[in-house]
Amino acid sequence: MLYEIAEKVIKLQNEGKKIIKFNVGDPDQSTNEEIVEAAFRAIKEGKTKYGSSSGEMVLREKLAEIYNVKAENVIITPGSKWAIFSSMFVSLKKGDNVVLPSPHWSAYELMAKQIGVETRLLKCELKSDWRIDVDKMNDLIDERTKMIILNNPNNPTSKVVNEKTVKEIAEISNEKDIKLLSDESYSAISFLKVKSILDFLGDHIYVNSFSKTFAMTGWRIGFTISNSELAEKLTRLNQITMTCVPQFIQEATLKALELRDRIAKDVKEVYRRRADLAYDILSRSKLEFSRPDSPFYLFPRCHGDSERLAFDMLDDGVAVTPGTAFGDYKEYFRIALTAPDKEVEEGLKKIAKVFS
Amino acid sequence: MLYEIAEKVIKLQNEGKKIIKFNVGDPDQSTNEEIVEAAFRAIKEGKTKYGSSSGEMVLREKLAEIYNVKAENVIITPGSKWAIFSSMFVSLKKGDNVVLPSPHWSAYELMAKQIGVETRLLKCELKSDWRIDVDKMNDLIDERTKMIILNNPNNPTSKVVNEKTVKEIAEISNEKDIKLLSDESYSAISFLKVKSILDFLGDHIYVNSFSKTFAMTGWRIGFTISNSELAEKLTRLNQITMTCVPQFIQEATLKALELRDRIAKDVKEVYRRRADLAYDILSRSKLEFSRPDSPFYLFPRCHGDSERLAFDMLDDGVAVTPGTAFGDYKEYFRIALTAPDKEVEEGLKKIAKVFS
Repeated sequence: MLYEIAEKVIKLQNEGKKIIKFNVGDPDQSTNEEIVEAAFRAIKEGKTKYGSSSGEMVLREKLAEIYNVKAENVIITPGSKWAIFSSMFVSLKKGDNVVLPSPHWSAYELMAKQIGVETRLLKCELKSDWRIDVDKMNDLIDERTKMIILNNPNNPTSKVVNEKTVKEIAEISNEKDIKLLSDESYSAISFLKVKSILDFLGDHIYVNSFSKTFAMTGWRIGFTISNSELAEKLTRLNQITMTCVPQFIQEATLKALELRDRIAKDVKEVYRRRADLAYDILSRSKLEFSRPDSPFYLFPRCHGDSERLAFDMLDDGVAVTPGTAFGDYKEYFRIALTAPDKEVEEGLKKIAKVFS
Repeated sequence: MLYEIAEKVIKLQNEGKKIIKFNVGDPDQSTNEEIVEAAFRAIKEGKTKYGSSSGEMVLREKLAEIYNVKAENVIITPGSKWAIFSSMFVSLKKGDNVVLPSPHWSAYELMAKQIGVETRLLKCELKSDWRIDVDKMNDLIDERTKMIILNNPNNPTSKVVNEKTVKEIAEISNEKDIKLLSDESYSAISFLKVKSILDFLGDHIYVNSFSKTFAMTGWRIGFTISNSELAEKLTRLNQITMTCVPQFIQEATLKALELRDRIAKDVKEVYRRRADLAYDILSRSKLEFSRPDSPFYLFPRCHGDSERLAFDMLDDGVAVTPGTAFGDYKEYFRIALTAPDKEVEEGLKKIAKVFS
């Protein structure tokens, strides 16, 4: 449903219809000008040739320095999506299963399905503030479980997994020799501090992105941090699929990393303000929801068919994503607060009105 | 071996060693300035957001117009490599086989292997000027053959497949209901006219790239033309893997298409001159080879171990690729005439000297 809605919105926009896009986690901000200039400079310098399928060494070294790992453990990917897909593709085989707390970003499940891997969903609940029940996670694991996927902070709930839970999941992963992939794409701009999987010993796969922190979604760049063996497998897969992320895009992200403290702080403030606004507006409606710990999303319960709601709201000029795109959550829907401030307020009021 | 040499060259260059890079089909020319400006303008206009996983409609429509197909049949991909990998990934399953004339670009075989598909090589010979024997191809086909891959013009021989052969292969594909994937990435700058698979009726997959014609290798953009059903499958795979090619890169290629007649003509002239030079210099050596019909490659026979040759020549500052990277061609090696003119002459003379 995520992609059906997204493609429908693009179609409607091409037809000239004005849509408040709460459906895609695509920041409305422009990419910072210094980042843009860095890309342009790199193009002018001729960095338009094939590059290494592991990523440019200077960027890998910079990331290695930031995350306190070795450059050989860092692989640059066209978006965190490819980071996750390629990690699953080289780590899993048909008949394996992955365990995944839900609600969840639908891409994980679609990727698993694409490579013949079963997804075992650990259903989390709004009433317990979307907490992950580690005992229940343990019950889902069997001898064919080869990966646990953690999305911290979570899309669509925007909840941060607490340190104790991350630690316990890392321990399960280590004890049972199951790979733990942690997608921390929203961590740098989270309102609450995120305990990274990198802080725990173990053979984990860390995934992050430049998309959300730096408003670089359409640039398509992310990365993995993993053991060297997996990093080499990822490089070999990159060699025969996408070759490399354009070097000039990698140069742009080098600049982004230089500016990251300032940019992350500013971006976080924007989304904190919007989250507060959303809390105020929607609290006055009949929607039930948990206060977000991080950008960009709210995942309210509407006590009705959210697929119908999503299509109805599209007629009303607001795009949201039905909860069915995130698992067995038909009565929920996702709001991405990634439209310009004015539209955010207008869109939230329209939603609140429906549930007044 | 192709990628081992490539990564080794990058390593040596990073260490400051000067290498004449005859090993990668990566044009030494810069991307045209108008194309660069178009990309920069698009970034400034905010085309840095998620786009359609099928590609931007304006680019698909432009390509549809050029190739006389419908826009819905065109899918934009991050390079022709992804076009080929994704086409194979959604069309083939474990246990299938693909038939492929050899010598061949190693990526085809590695892709097939990655998805559990057997590659059946049709060995072509220098002595028959690398012609494809269609009867022999027929003999390789069985009930598990689900795809024939044609690379026209061919990498590494730079030979163009004659019209009669293309027609016969298309007929086999139609009669036996086997998908024919034709990678025509070098066709726009070929010295001889290439008969495209698009000129023959049938349910074929056409693949092309902006890399070679427009010196845009590192921009990572190519496309497929296929039936609508396959196009939709490719879109769905793109949605869960690479999302989209950056919109600003698609804008750059729109500009490239505007300029294509002029650029293709200029590029073709550069490579024709280099091919003539290579012919002159290498004809005076003991190397045997066929005169190229298209850019960029020569695939001479050296009557020795070309893997050892490749590593020896690297010490001498010239990178070539051993024939083993292209199939069962240990005595052959590939020269890519993609270095600056002065280096081309110097490198060719070094090679000729070894075989004087």
